[in-house]
Amino acid sequence: MQRYDVTQLRRYCTEIFQRAGIPAEDAELTSDALVLTDMRGINSHGVLRAAHYITCIQAGGLRPDGRLEVTAEGGAFLRLSAAGGMGIPASMRATDLLIEHAHTQAITIATLNHSDHYGAAGLYAQRCSDAGLIGFSMSNTCPMIAVTGAAVKGIGNNPFAYAAPGRRHRGILFDVCMSVVASGKIQIAAAENKKIPTGWIVDRDGQPTDDPQHIYQGGSFLPFANHKGYGFAVMVELLAGILANAGILSEVRSWNKTPGRESNTGHCFLAINPAFFGGEEHFRQRVDQMLDSLTSARKAPGCDRIFYPGEIEFNHEADALEHGVPLPTPSVDELKKAGELVGLPFTLPPLPA
Amino acid sequence: MQRYDVTQLRRYCTEIFQRAGIPAEDAELTSDALVLTDMRGINSHGVLRAAHYITCIQAGGLRPDGRLEVTAEGGAFLRLSAAGGMGIPASMRATDLLIEHAHTQAITIATLNHSDHYGAAGLYAQRCSDAGLIGFSMSNTCPMIAVTGAAVKGIGNNPFAYAAPGRRHRGILFDVCMSVVASGKIQIAAAENKKIPTGWIVDRDGQPTDDPQHIYQGGSFLPFANHKGYGFAVMVELLAGILANAGILSEVRSWNKTPGRESNTGHCFLAINPAFFGGEEHFRQRVDQMLDSLTSARKAPGCDRIFYPGEIEFNHEADALEHGVPLPTPSVDELKKAGELVGLPFTLPPLPA
Repeated sequence: MQRYDVTQLRRYCTEIFQRAGIPAEDAELTSDALVLTDMRGINSHGVLRAAHYITCIQAGGLRPDGRLEVTAEGGAFLRLSAAGGMGIPASMRATDLLIEHAHTQAITIATLNHSDHYGAAGLYAQRCSDAGLIGFSMSNTCPMIAVTGAAVKGIGNNPFAYAAPGRRHRGILFDVCMSVVASGKIQIAAAENKKIPTGWIVDRDGQPTDDPQHIYQGGSFLPFANHKGYGFAVMVELLAGILANAGILSEVRSWNKTPGRESNTGHCFLAINPAFFGGEEHFRQRVDQMLDSLTSARKAPGCDRIFYPGEIEFNHEADALEHGVPLPTPSVDELKKAGELVGLPFTLPPLPA
Repeated sequence: MQRYDVTQLRRYCTEIFQRAGIPAEDAELTSDALVLTDMRGINSHGVLRAAHYITCIQAGGLRPDGRLEVTAEGGAFLRLSAAGGMGIPASMRATDLLIEHAHTQAITIATLNHSDHYGAAGLYAQRCSDAGLIGFSMSNTCPMIAVTGAAVKGIGNNPFAYAAPGRRHRGILFDVCMSVVASGKIQIAAAENKKIPTGWIVDRDGQPTDDPQHIYQGGSFLPFANHKGYGFAVMVELLAGILANAGILSEVRSWNKTPGRESNTGHCFLAINPAFFGGEEHFRQRVDQMLDSLTSARKAPGCDRIFYPGEIEFNHEADALEHGVPLPTPSVDELKKAGELVGLPFTLPPLPA
């Protein structure tokens, strides 16, 4: 794990995305989002993915100049299309439109189809929270999870996030997928040749296994808490897939397996404006009060501190802003690969330890 | 488990609630909701609770004639108060107002404070679904769960439900609380003097235990999937507690411990109208398609059938409609207790087997 200068890293990422054909402003939105995700400590969804996006562009599955289009809109809703372009800049612009509407609405919903992998779900929820709103963000994905009773994957791991602002506390940020563990943990165990607990994945026949390699041999992830993770995955499919008029289930294509085909991923965003429910200031103070109460409870044996949802990520972010972004080796390797794909070698020096 | 005639059971429950001082229409709404919940097989939230409601009324913690009040409203929102009355009739009326608004809105939100235990969360979500909408329903509760890292209970098990209509299929109905298992399972294990798996609850010191009795001795429930259940519980507290201007966390009082005090429970309901997103018929067909796809996957070893969320409950409901409502002994015992509280003995004959 080595640290890199935030500004330099952003600039480098922006440049490789521009070289891949993405217009300057969209390249910057994408770069800022990925670097911010690494700053929050979610390396699985940060610059690690840069080469994936560029591979899809070069394979023809992503239109680098696809821009957000408004399909329909009304007071409390927006139906949007990413027009086959990058998921991150489309979702950033969608969130900004949502926030604009939300200033005069108690609640607003935006759906987005013809999109692609949109990075960390929490990015868009937190953007709403930074604007004083409660934000929700969700996306479907290609099938990864075997639902309760199934031997094979049938639904995506369908990330879901929400965020809300506090006053003394920055607020709440919660971002999860619907599998027991994120795919990154399986990848790491596989790379290190380690066993995993049974209950995380099943093999191609739907049998329990402790061998992470099975995920690459037709295996499936299991939903968290059995039917609960299944039901939340269906909720996301309903809003981000069906309601958004995007692909659903196996209609959503994997960027690993078919980088040359549009994935037609769908997203759904919601914003609630606390001003309509007793005032923003009152809301923020009650959020503070809730977080104070939750984190000051008597600790479990062996536990030093209780965190509220998002606290660890915000701590990471503040630390990265001050001391540079820590990037694990796989992230640096993928950045190098991304640089090679567009002929701009990665030469950023790590910061002195 | 004996079966009872649906109409007779509804009539009996309506009458005991009326005798407890609840106006006729509200008594009927409450009775219908409880019996419907038993019909769906969720006996933990059906007539089993009748005596609890009456005890709270008689102790002064619930105003039997508290009626739903509109605090504020706009196009896409309603702020409502149950005025210290029964949670079920207030929530039924709130849902009907929500549905009315939702006919001309892409999305509508209703919050409800000064309420009490509202029965099964899924009742209100399914009522929206029966009207062709996507419905969401959530409520906070008095603290029951020790959040990740805590030794003691700090947040409710905060039920959450959503529902959406299909065409050939009735649709999706998903209704969960945020603990690993519902309190009913612990109660049953305790009554039968059986051990439970560690990981369901902790004792008063936050230590893992397999003894269900500890839940009655200061123990706490654990959230499902650790920080995931924690984060979803906070989401419900945010919307049903803070946004609704209801009590939050320990401000919400237990109807078991303090039946004589207003609980100030809060709820939040949402409705999304698919007509604004490509049409209701198209939406229903896509829901059917999703459910067909999920349930026709290759089965896991030892599994005969894959169910979609709500399918088991709908099957129970259809069966109960045809053959009568099956009530387990504790439900009948509680009905008898409720009848004694208001001087109307329970004399309904069970249906012939």
